[in-house]
Order: sequence, then structure tokens, then C-alpha cells
Amino acid sequence: MSRTVFLNGDFVPFEEARIPVMDRGFLFADGIYEVAAIIDGKLVDEVAHLARLDRSLRAIEIANPYTSEEWIALMRELAARDEVREGLVYIEVTRGVAERDFPFPPEGTPPTVVMFTQAKRILGAPAAEKGVAVITVPDLRWKRRDIKSVALLAQVLAKQEAARAGVSEAWMVEDGHVTEGGSSTAFIITPDDRLVTRPLSNAVLPGITRIAVMQLAREMQLTIEERLFTVEEALCAREAFYTSASAIVMPVVTIDGKAIGDGSPGPMTKRLREVYLALARDGALASG
Amino acid sequence: MSRTVFLNGDFVPFEEARIPVMDRGFLFADGIYEVAAIIDGKLVDEVAHLARLDRSLRAIEIANPYTSEEWIALMRELAARDEVREGLVYIEVTRGVAERDFPFPPEGTPPTVVMFTQAKRILGAPAAEKGVAVITVPDLRWKRRDIKSVALLAQVLAKQEAARAGVSEAWMVEDGHVTEGGSSTAFIITPDDRLVTRPLSNAVLPGITRIAVMQLAREMQLTIEERLFTVEEALCAREAFYTSASAIVMPVVTIDGKAIGDGSPGPMTKRLREVYLALARDGALASG
Repeated sequence: MSRTVFLNGDFVPFEEARIPVMDRGFLFADGIYEVAAIIDGKLVDEVAHLARLDRSLRAIEIANPYTSEEWIALMRELAARDEVREGLVYIEVTRGVAERDFPFPPEGTPPTVVMFTQAKRILGAPAAEKGVAVITVPDLRWKRRDIKSVALLAQVLAKQEAARAGVSEAWMVEDGHVTEGGSSTAFIITPDDRLVTRPLSNAVLPGITRIAVMQLAREMQLTIEERLFTVEEALCAREAFYTSASAIVMPVVTIDGKAIGDGSPGPMTKRLREVYLALARDGALASG
Repeated sequence: MSRTVFLNGDFVPFEEARIPVMDRGFLFADGIYEVAAIIDGKLVDEVAHLARLDRSLRAIEIANPYTSEEWIALMRELAARDEVREGLVYIEVTRGVAERDFPFPPEGTPPTVVMFTQAKRILGAPAAEKGVAVITVPDLRWKRRDIKSVALLAQVLAKQEAARAGVSEAWMVEDGHVTEGGSSTAFIITPDDRLVTRPLSNAVLPGITRIAVMQLAREMQLTIEERLFTVEEALCAREAFYTSASAIVMPVVTIDGKAIGDGSPGPMTKRLREVYLALARDGALASG
């Protein structure tokens, strides 16, 4: 099957999707990205992803080239062209192409827009059945982690360390507290059934799946605590999981080699995953 | 005059120098860069720049595609093709092109190599005659600033703030202490004639011009103190300057709008600049 890239207004064959070396995304990591899931050929929680894209772009003063409606039409068109039933759509918007110099280029420099899909198993992912292992690593990132920028080298190094350890994710730790995963939000469920995740701040990315899962948890009468938690508390948790657009709700069964609960996916985690997926398939997720 | 880009082994016309959207430099800021000056058509301190390139690449486990001798030959060839007598040569090496996924791509994935020149006035730069203004901004960067990576968004935002304030550089401040400039090393000379700059650590980039200038200062019998200094101490300094491959030694005459010394370039700063430039033109800078 041929693969298409949306590049600056055009749908081009994957092999031809190239950007000038002077693109500020390539020279300065001066760009923003988003990733949304596709399930049953439909976008999941796309309005919320596009709202976050808009917030990130505003934070670094890149003009959003499209309205939410325009983005959605383009994403759907791309998913249809690539015939993706299950997978991801990736969006990147950079500050465009200009002679290399740190400050912003002249007003009116058009942003670079890149969008592509990745076919990927989401619904029946074997990892979700068995649960996954995570390790903890120091959080090396900058101080504006609420901005979803492509300056991802710290996350690359964290997730490479996880890959090398044969595990699925790295939970990043700062001052003894878990901030979040390399590309996901970290959750624990305490022995007294409280769902704990770090509150929003500059220290973490505001996860889109995080919002939806917390809303489902509230509807399931779970007590939610948005607060910092330590690695030690996580190790004593009854259940643990992480959320992201691609992992949805992923049960964590070991942290740094130590079993969480009985070492298998916890019942509340499984229930949250099932409910989320059912709503995603119905197109019934709260968006915004 | 035509401009050439060195791209993955070939010298190509500037307009044709494009990289695939799947380049990890574009998607993840997963790359390293260097910038060296060209004066009188000759590279300045290139051996030291290439040693730092090698160190940065090792730090994130990208194989250096060339030996120092090979790099130097390529840099000279490019400068000759572009007929650059005065300016910069920029090198970027990324982890190459691969399907988007955070961990490193399969072993053997070739790195992407990009090199281009920028013609720029260095010797008689008017800013160096009059001195420049700087502002202070919070240092938002990650914790491995000793690695010269292309994850430069924090520096872009700092230097844009400087540009918007109409000044030349932003000195970044962490816990009350100046770390360094957005793309330069910060120095002050105290009222009792001590040259002060921050010691090397993960908090700052090991400046190449910094090394050469400190060696010259030592030969000029200046007392050198490698230690942290506050913004308040900088405001009370007798002289201030910053160093970089392109600015060489740049006198700072105001910080946050407050005059340093008598508000004109200090005599020791001017002397360091002159000596450095004379040695650079003779090709006599210590390298390594």
C-alpha cells in the first residue's frame, strides 16, 4: 500500500516528503507536535488533541495554520488515503524555513506542516493483556514540559534506556517524585483505592487520554487525587498504569523489576481500558 | 554566488538540500551540531570544535561518521566552494532516518550529516566596537547542557526575548546565578581584576572560545576564577563580555539596562578580543 504525507498543503508520496535543511524544526527543534489515535478508521479525541496543539503553538508563538475543522478534515483525508483502520496520525508544525539564526524569522514566514499516519495495533495489543514493565530514570527535561515541542532528546534517551532494559516505558523521576512517562501519563491506585496522578503544571504534559480516563474514573466513583507521588509509593500501589494516545490505558505490572500488586493487570485498570475503548469506538469521548 | 550544502557525502546546491520528514533531527531533536568561525578564509579552532562534536555525539551514542581530518577536509572544501572569507561553518549530525519511534533505530542506520556555511562579518563587527546590551532571562533548559544538541527551543525563546528587547544576547539565570548566554559563554571582570566565569558542569556548554580566551587571560597574568556568579555581582562588575565562535569576544556594556563599568567596552575585554583575533588570523590558536 502506498503511504502519503501531508506536507504544506499537499498530499505527497511518502518517499518525496522532504523538508529543506533550513527548517527550524531540524535546526532548532522549534516546532510542536501531536499524535492522535485512529480506531475503526475513526479519529479518537481529535478535538482535544487539536486544542492542545493550539495551546502549544500559542505558547511558542507559532500561528496555527488551520482551524480545528480544517485539521480534522485533513486528518480524515490522510487516514482514508493511507487506509488506516487502526493506528496513529502524527502532526508537526514548525516555525518554518529561514536562514539559521536563533530569534524568530521575519513575520509572515510560513510554518512547516507535516502530517503522516502509522498503522499500529491498539485494540488487541498483547502488551495490554499481559501488562508491561517500566523502569524509572532521572527526568532530564526542560522546565516547560507542558508544551508539546519536538525538543524530545531527553525523552529519546529515557525511552532508549527502557528499550535497552527490555521494558515498555521509562517513568521519569524528579526530586524523588514521578513526573510522567517518556511519552505517557503515570497513574497509580493506592491500597485504599484512590487513583493518583500528578497535577498539571509546567512539569508535565497535559495528557489528553489522562483527561478522559480521569473523567471515566470519576463516573466509576473512584476517588481521584491529583498530587505528587514517590517511586516508593508507586512500588506499594495496588495497581499502576499509564495513558497515552497510542497505549490508551496500559497496565504496569512491574516497576524497576518489582511486582505491582499481584504482578498482573489490576481490575480497575482493565475496567478503565475497556470503558475508554468502548467510548472511543462509539465516538463518544468527551472532547475539548 | 551559488551556495552549497554538504549532505550525506555529497555537495549539493542549497535549493536541493532536503531531508526526509522521518529524519530524527526533525522529529525528535535527536542530533548534535557545531559552529566554527572562518576568518581570512581559514577555519578557526576547528580541531577543538571537532573534539567537542565527537564528545557530544558519544554522549548520545551517535557514531561519528568522520575522523577529525576528514571533517576538516570537508569543511575546507565547502568554505572554498562557497568562497567564504569570513563567516561560519555549521555542522549537524542526527541519528538518521527511521520510522518514528522514540528508542534508537536499528543498528547500522546511517546518521544524517548536514554542513553549510554562512557569510558573516566577524573581524570588524560594529557591535564589538561599541559593545552590546544583554538581558537576563530564566534558564529553562534541560539538565545536560554540556551536550551541544539541536534541542534548542529554550535558547530560541531566550534569544527571541533578547531580540524583542532590542539587545544582542540573553544571559540565562538559574537559582540567581548566570549560567551562560543563549549561544555564548558569560564572563565578568570584578572590580579587583579577577576574570570570573562559571565552571564546567552539566549546567553549561563547554565553550571552545571560552577555553582559548581563558588561556590568553592566563598568559596576560589575569587571575581567573571559575565559579558561579549572581546577576547582582555581574551588575557591579568592572567589565563584562561573552564569547562564542561567531561573536569571538563581545563586550557587554549594559545588563538589563544597567551600565557595566563606564558603559563602554572595557580595556581588558578589548585586549582579549584583539589578541584572540590576531592568533586566529595567524592560525596559532591552541587546539584540542
